[in-house]
Amino acid sequence: MMRLCVIPGDGIGQEVVPSAVRVLEKLLPGLEVTEAEAGWECFRRQGTSVPETTLQQMRECGAGLFGAVSSPSWQVEGYRSAILALRQSLQLNVNLRPVRSWPRISPRSDVDLLILRENSEGLYIGREYMQQSGNLAIAEAHISRQASEDIARRAVEVAVLRTSRRVTLVHKANVLPLTCGLFRDSCRRVLEEAGLRDIVDERLVDVAALQLIECPEEFDLLVTTNLFGDILSDLASHWSGGLGMAPSLNWGQGIALAEPVHGSAPDIAGTGKANPLAAILSSALLLRYHWHAGALADQLEGAVERLLAEISIAEMGGETTQRI
Amino acid sequence: MMRLCVIPGDGIGQEVVPSAVRVLEKLLPGLEVTEAEAGWECFRRQGTSVPETTLQQMRECGAGLFGAVSSPSWQVEGYRSAILALRQSLQLNVNLRPVRSWPRISPRSDVDLLILRENSEGLYIGREYMQQSGNLAIAEAHISRQASEDIARRAVEVAVLRTSRRVTLVHKANVLPLTCGLFRDSCRRVLEEAGLRDIVDERLVDVAALQLIECPEEFDLLVTTNLFGDILSDLASHWSGGLGMAPSLNWGQGIALAEPVHGSAPDIAGTGKANPLAAILSSALLLRYHWHAGALADQLEGAVERLLAEISIAEMGGETTQRI
Ligand SMILES: CC(C)[C@H](C(=O)O)[C@@H](O)C(=O)O
Ligand SMILES: CC(C)[C@H](C(=O)O)[C@@H](O)C(=O)O
Repeated sequence: MMRLCVIPGDGIGQEVVPSAVRVLEKLLPGLEVTEAEAGWECFRRQGTSVPETTLQQMRECGAGLFGAVSSPSWQVEGYRSAILALRQSLQLNVNLRPVRSWPRISPRSDVDLLILRENSEGLYIGREYMQQSGNLAIAEAHISRQASEDIARRAVEVAVLRTSRRVTLVHKANVLPLTCGLFRDSCRRVLEEAGLRDIVDERLVDVAALQLIECPEEFDLLVTTNLFGDILSDLASHWSGGLGMAPSLNWGQGIALAEPVHGSAPDIAGTGKANPLAAILSSALLLRYHWHAGALADQLEGAVERLLAEISIAEMGGETTQRI
Repeated sequence: MMRLCVIPGDGIGQEVVPSAVRVLEKLLPGLEVTEAEAGWECFRRQGTSVPETTLQQMRECGAGLFGAVSSPSWQVEGYRSAILALRQSLQLNVNLRPVRSWPRISPRSDVDLLILRENSEGLYIGREYMQQSGNLAIAEAHISRQASEDIARRAVEVAVLRTSRRVTLVHKANVLPLTCGLFRDSCRRVLEEAGLRDIVDERLVDVAALQLIECPEEFDLLVTTNLFGDILSDLASHWSGGLGMAPSLNWGQGIALAEPVHGSAPDIAGTGKANPLAAILSSALLLRYHWHAGALADQLEGAVERLLAEISIAEMGGETTQRI
């Protein structure tokens, strides 16, 4: 029995998640869906952005679909971004962010790459201090051999599913020789031991950003640290048609949380205009990588492709997805 | 008497710097030029990538033009990137990186923005540690009120020179509330006190990266921290025609070092194919911002514009620039 924990969250999360669930239920008859809370509204009601019950539900289901959450633009005592808390508490240590061309909405027709973003450390470990004077703030970036090897092993796993097999390690080791150096060298060793020596390449992050725009065909699997992955995946979503078309999978051992990269879009929440495709494509990642149902994922992505060939994003709303 | 310290460095630095110097000498008759050493070849000869005499020459001249340096791809005991050493030793605390459309080579004709990159701190302060086990490396990012206020004051100074006046602060305060928060708030206060409240906006760095590609016209002055500025300026050079057309100015109090953003390109060094325009346009930044000779800078940029309307980058070499 397959189980899915849905966490719609705030704003359009409440709209795109039900659309994606309907699609998944079609593909997986008997899928057992439970709903859990997280986000800003949840924080206001319960004083925490991710209640313990939500973590329990996620652990029981093994698979989850997250919508989006709002965050206050000012600092709120005790508030923590729900998605960061989920990634950390559930040890979702890798974030998988595919970027590909879609009919009509993509500026090019030949882009097909996959960003593997380290999802647990770097500058995201939450170690920041303000000196007493209030004039100097310090943040620590941690890079561990363990996490670097983990993401490289995921890269090996994913590489075999792809026709084009090239791995590009993206870092800034010319300025950060110890942290980025450890990342690069640990990844490289795992990849080489897996027999992938010939396909491993590397780029400095500044150059990679430019090349993702100038020659995206140079990339196949791009493996990088947390914050670089955050920046580069938003950037590369340009080729998919923007953030509204950017899916992701927060990926741990035996547990995965699908997450459209877009935000809660309070300005269009409730208008029925929210495009559910990023949520739907995130579900396809659950199918392919977590449930090992590649054929169903192909079927789903194929349906999205046909839909996009026929109608424009502007016409797309919760209703249209019934055609998928 | 105006003085210029040239630091050609390695590879094509040796070719593009003389071209730029010829142009500057035409515009500033009597310019006194002295040459100084830095870089990898210098390290191999003298054991340091930036000799003390080079720093002295720079301090005496007040203005410098840096070419490019090679760096070993492996770690070399005692070697430090020459440009990082120069920025730090000479307190060149702000890096100015304009991005604009040029005839024929730019993918759009209407881009005109200026990136102000903090140039002294963040992850560039060189505080990195490896734990004894060798399994965890830690890097510190420092953000100070002082450096943040300094760059904001530069933004005020620069804003008055531009017709379109908007400032976008780029940070990642949703994940780094203390460091990025200090940067944002310090900048904002300086800008507001200077009466620019109405034109200050902000973006998260991931969103900014995508928007620099999707809607570059949204940006005018983009003010950001060191590493974000590194990534975003390489990326945005897409609109200028790539790194070969990306100039920059490392800017301190009463001292400035112009620097083409490209590297030493050992593969084309000596072939006469190196495009000197980034070095020449970096000289224009010295004219405009350090020597306060805006009219000469306009004249120089106008000449580059006419040249590009006539010939292609492929035809461009050291010789062609005699036409500027
Ligand atoms: C909302 C934010 C904390 C998050 C991140 O920085 O990881 C988002 O940008 C993402 O990419 O999922
Ligand atoms: C060479 C490198 C240290 C440098 C940097 O990271 O600042 C370069 O990328 C730049 O942008 O000037």
